[in-house]
Amino acid sequence: MERTPSLDTLNKVGQEVRLKGWVRLVRDHGKVMFVDIRDYSGVVQVVFVAGMLSDEQVALIKGLHGEDVVEIIGTAQQRKPGTENADMPTGTVEVFGKELTVLQKAAELPFDMGGKDLNLELPTLLDNRSLTLRHPKVQAVFKVQEIIVDSFRNALKEKGFTEFIAPALVPLPTEGGAEVFKVNYFDKTVYLGQSPQFYKQIMVGVFERAFTVGKVYRAEPSVTTRHLTEYLSLDAEFGFIENYEEIMDMAEHVISRIFDDLNEKGAEYLKLYQASVPKFSKPIPRIKLSEAKEVIFNETGRDIRSEPDLDPQGERDIYAWAQKEYGSELIFVTHYPTVKRPFYTYPDPENPEETLSFDLIGRGVEWVTGGRRINEYGQLLESAKKWGNEPKDLEIYLQAFKYGMPPEGGFALGVERITMNVLGLKNVREASAFPRDMERVDIRLS
Amino acid sequence: MERTPSLDTLNKVGQEVRLKGWVRLVRDHGKVMFVDIRDYSGVVQVVFVAGMLSDEQVALIKGLHGEDVVEIIGTAQQRKPGTENADMPTGTVEVFGKELTVLQKAAELPFDMGGKDLNLELPTLLDNRSLTLRHPKVQAVFKVQEIIVDSFRNALKEKGFTEFIAPALVPLPTEGGAEVFKVNYFDKTVYLGQSPQFYKQIMVGVFERAFTVGKVYRAEPSVTTRHLTEYLSLDAEFGFIENYEEIMDMAEHVISRIFDDLNEKGAEYLKLYQASVPKFSKPIPRIKLSEAKEVIFNETGRDIRSEPDLDPQGERDIYAWAQKEYGSELIFVTHYPTVKRPFYTYPDPENPEETLSFDLIGRGVEWVTGGRRINEYGQLLESAKKWGNEPKDLEIYLQAFKYGMPPEGGFALGVERITMNVLGLKNVREASAFPRDMERVDIRLS
Repeated sequence: MERTPSLDTLNKVGQEVRLKGWVRLVRDHGKVMFVDIRDYSGVVQVVFVAGMLSDEQVALIKGLHGEDVVEIIGTAQQRKPGTENADMPTGTVEVFGKELTVLQKAAELPFDMGGKDLNLELPTLLDNRSLTLRHPKVQAVFKVQEIIVDSFRNALKEKGFTEFIAPALVPLPTEGGAEVFKVNYFDKTVYLGQSPQFYKQIMVGVFERAFTVGKVYRAEPSVTTRHLTEYLSLDAEFGFIENYEEIMDMAEHVISRIFDDLNEKGAEYLKLYQASVPKFSKPIPRIKLSEAKEVIFNETGRDIRSEPDLDPQGERDIYAWAQKEYGSELIFVTHYPTVKRPFYTYPDPENPEETLSFDLIGRGVEWVTGGRRINEYGQLLESAKKWGNEPKDLEIYLQAFKYGMPPEGGFALGVERITMNVLGLKNVREASAFPRDMERVDIRLS
Repeated sequence: MERTPSLDTLNKVGQEVRLKGWVRLVRDHGKVMFVDIRDYSGVVQVVFVAGMLSDEQVALIKGLHGEDVVEIIGTAQQRKPGTENADMPTGTVEVFGKELTVLQKAAELPFDMGGKDLNLELPTLLDNRSLTLRHPKVQAVFKVQEIIVDSFRNALKEKGFTEFIAPALVPLPTEGGAEVFKVNYFDKTVYLGQSPQFYKQIMVGVFERAFTVGKVYRAEPSVTTRHLTEYLSLDAEFGFIENYEEIMDMAEHVISRIFDDLNEKGAEYLKLYQASVPKFSKPIPRIKLSEAKEVIFNETGRDIRSEPDLDPQGERDIYAWAQKEYGSELIFVTHYPTVKRPFYTYPDPENPEETLSFDLIGRGVEWVTGGRRINEYGQLLESAKKWGNEPKDLEIYLQAFKYGMPPEGGFALGVERITMNVLGLKNVREASAFPRDMERVDIRLS
């Protein structure tokens, strides 16, 4: 008999099925035993009645515990009215178990995996990562993450973007020398890229509209709740913009599509976290940084008007204001000062001390960062030099501009951070299957 | 007026259009000038008639060269019968140009970019990568690559696989100490992963069916035509197999889907290389390594029967035989010796000196490698130790097996190598947008 994935029991009521999976949960009511079985398609409840089984089978079932790997033959049946479980996609059916085989016995679990929540401290959660990832609520994090990445990809493909593979090994620490990892490369040194920025700009010259999904690295020398040393960056860049607002329009298209897909395909996962995607007005409100600082002063009395940037409190304040003023949990803050942005950022022709750049603030933290870039070769070369770069070091990058580059811009988002913020996780490590930080690379570094 | 992507001119015959793009090619016939314009959607021909334009415009057009960034206003029209170009998707139309503006002037090109082929030596191709990537035949390589990756993803998603993000920074060189890059990680050392093998196996415990698309690194200390130090690996792994042939079935499903998608969506790119996807019989023929060596001896007289592996010539010989015998350009070679495969490979219960492993040989080279893995904790622990591993070093990996792992297996393919082999490229560097090797990371390392 073919194996039936647990979700398919919905279509096999009245039929014999063969399930295979992990024991998620055992509830032993003496004469009746319930065993929840987890497989790639979800979870289904199996009910065993002791009186209808051999003593050997009963002992086997009573001896089961979480993560045992089993095979079950039984009959799919409708659950009795009133016993349905609305929290499970298979909650209207169950399998009446006839025969159980243990394929692999799991070791005793070091903590309870059967509850709705895991309730573990972060070090325990990560020291036992290969186990804790199996908990449905932890699984949900990575289902949400998969939806976000797919959605980013689909939203851009439908706008004519081509996906390309950016390298992670780079010849120089291009975004400043600090916070970059060195790689021993034969008898030389190369670096782990902090962003695919240069490569996505080069690819504008190739495909005009390009994006890449790949790892970036930051040698963040402190352990915070929102930094990882290795994370997945979603990067888009496109040419022939007529104004820099188009870049925000494209970012809004992508974010909006991610939220739609999360609602459509991720509802069951969001529900586990009692989470919902941010509400926002269309278009998302846009405010210049200088005006945002005025607003914050007016609203809170806190004066950061002479600061070059928004501090974390400032991000929370402008979010609170956007909620109050527009009912929007997202707001674009634009025109960051030239001194705070990289050399390739396009200065505002109306005020060269400000740039045509933006951050998308979502629920009080930075979700997306982007802007227009300098596309004219001479201007870029001059800006690169002014910031202390050797043109020879930027040869491949500058080449793209030497041979014709239209007005262009783009944006980037970190997958783990978006996942964390959508689900309301307290630490970005929970949004990475195998988080790396200063102290941990799977195992604690000693 | 809205911009018209070049491909949309097909739907705008008789209408005024505004094109934006790069000059691909100028053919100046004196009174009539043809300018091919390239943008994200493709290429379209624009025709200018000198007598209908100002002297200034004529001078501007005659001064154009490849990669100039321009905007053109004109009228889309059907080409005259007999002047259609079947090689271009827009080959039945052209734009009658009225006005041209140069948005960015490109520097003089260092070589001809206008021909069907680039005809450059590899060092020149790579020294000028930001330019050479723009050539339609080079672009085609990365369009093909995009199709391969998407196709892998879609083929597995439809089988219930979940995509996850594997880390590239790893605590130990797990596949042997050689050929691994060291990363200076704060005051410690970590490594760049040579494969996501351990992580995809861990994820079988989580999602049962899992795949990942990500970078892997090999410190290959020689410069060959088929090795890169950084490449993109497509890795799949799944549980509850009933026999190890199912792993080859799944690999065949994926490969078959990739070929279908290449034929459907990539025909214009394959055509540029006069390439076609490999023919193969369904199912793809399967032969044990020991039998393959006998076949080679019988067919060629070359005796490699005492060798533990197939050498490159052996891969070509068995391919020639599969073509002759089955009309198939693909063949699975199975049952590699235990001594030649990693510690987690499943020994054949019928002959523990052989493993339930396979390589898919395509057109004489390895395309896919895979097999069944040891899923029983005790057996895996013993094998790991026997191969000289410290169990403590494998803690997170072994954990996945300690807490219940079904029979499982999987496979992996390198995107650049598949791209190279499908298109018949001579060097794998041509199949990487930004290839890294011992001597080059964008720039030549000195």
